[in-house]
Amino acid sequence: MLTLFHHPICPQSRFVRLALEEYGLPVRLVEEHVWERRQEFLALNPAGTTPVLVEEGAPPIPGAAAIAEYLDETRGADLENNRLMPQDLGGRIEVRRLMSWFNEKFAEEVSNALVMERVYKRYIPAGNGGGSPDTETLRAAKSNIRYHLDYIGWLIRSRDWLAGASRT
Amino acid sequence: MLTLFHHPICPQSRFVRLALEEYGLPVRLVEEHVWERRQEFLALNPAGTTPVLVEEGAPPIPGAAAIAEYLDETRGADLENNRLMPQDLGGRIEVRRLMSWFNEKFAEEVSNALVMERVYKRYIPAGNGGGSPDTETLRAAKSNIRYHLDYIGWLIRSRDWLAGASRT
Repeated sequence: MLTLFHHPICPQSRFVRLALEEYGLPVRLVEEHVWERRQEFLALNPAGTTPVLVEEGAPPIPGAAAIAEYLDETRGADLENNRLMPQDLGGRIEVRRLMSWFNEKFAEEVSNALVMERVYKRYIPAGNGGGSPDTETLRAAKSNIRYHLDYIGWLIRSRDWLAGASRT
Repeated sequence: MLTLFHHPICPQSRFVRLALEEYGLPVRLVEEHVWERRQEFLALNPAGTTPVLVEEGAPPIPGAAAIAEYLDETRGADLENNRLMPQDLGGRIEVRRLMSWFNEKFAEEVSNALVMERVYKRYIPAGNGGGSPDTETLRAAKSNIRYHLDYIGWLIRSRDWLAGASRT
């Protein structure tokens, strides 16, 4: 049985929930409030971030990219022609590049700021970095999002699927 | 022939140079000044970051993690018992976790700030974000580094090698 420590609004958690859905894998979802820094959760992932996938017999798997590689290594072949990770080297490079683009670069420049300012900070005590959203941070994220939307638009216009000619 | 677009002071570039050295692979090094945002470089990696590995017959490979996976997939088996990526699932999870820890988390919390403030900003025009180091950013990075040194210390004390019982 798979257990996913996640948050509904965390973009990297959503990426993993979608991947699990594509694999058709049942999963027990545990909503983790990373800002509470629970000791049991930090023991699973000292980085203190969602998502973390837990499966008996393996160490906890932290982070969207490592979870994607793990799912491909353990169940990728079962998906046959619907395998999410391409089998050719070039396709793998492009999928990894775009996973990194959205889960790391887009997160750093846009989504982490929105999630933190708009959602998580409501639950964090004021003395601990919580409180009202920081308008300057939100403005920067909103300014960055335009470049990302342009890039996504270009990818969509120039390809059948985001990462290339076939579905990944 | 492999070409690595890198910068001597970029930590993720150093990670890849060390990996290439372990593989015994000759490489042509091209020093990239990412702050100049060269069009030819952006065509290789629209994210505009080092490192980028280029090999004929494959798309350019951006980022330390994707390069590590590519080297393992194309040459890992040649290293036999010295293979950097473990063959067991648990070992792979731990190596990927630590690659992400140092190349992303440590970078975000410590090294990117030091590299940007102490080195890159010297070369960036003042009107474009360059100039003197921002002392508040440097102070935050220096404060964060203590937690990372503690964590590295714990890893070293509790294991034979950073990522586990054997060399990776």
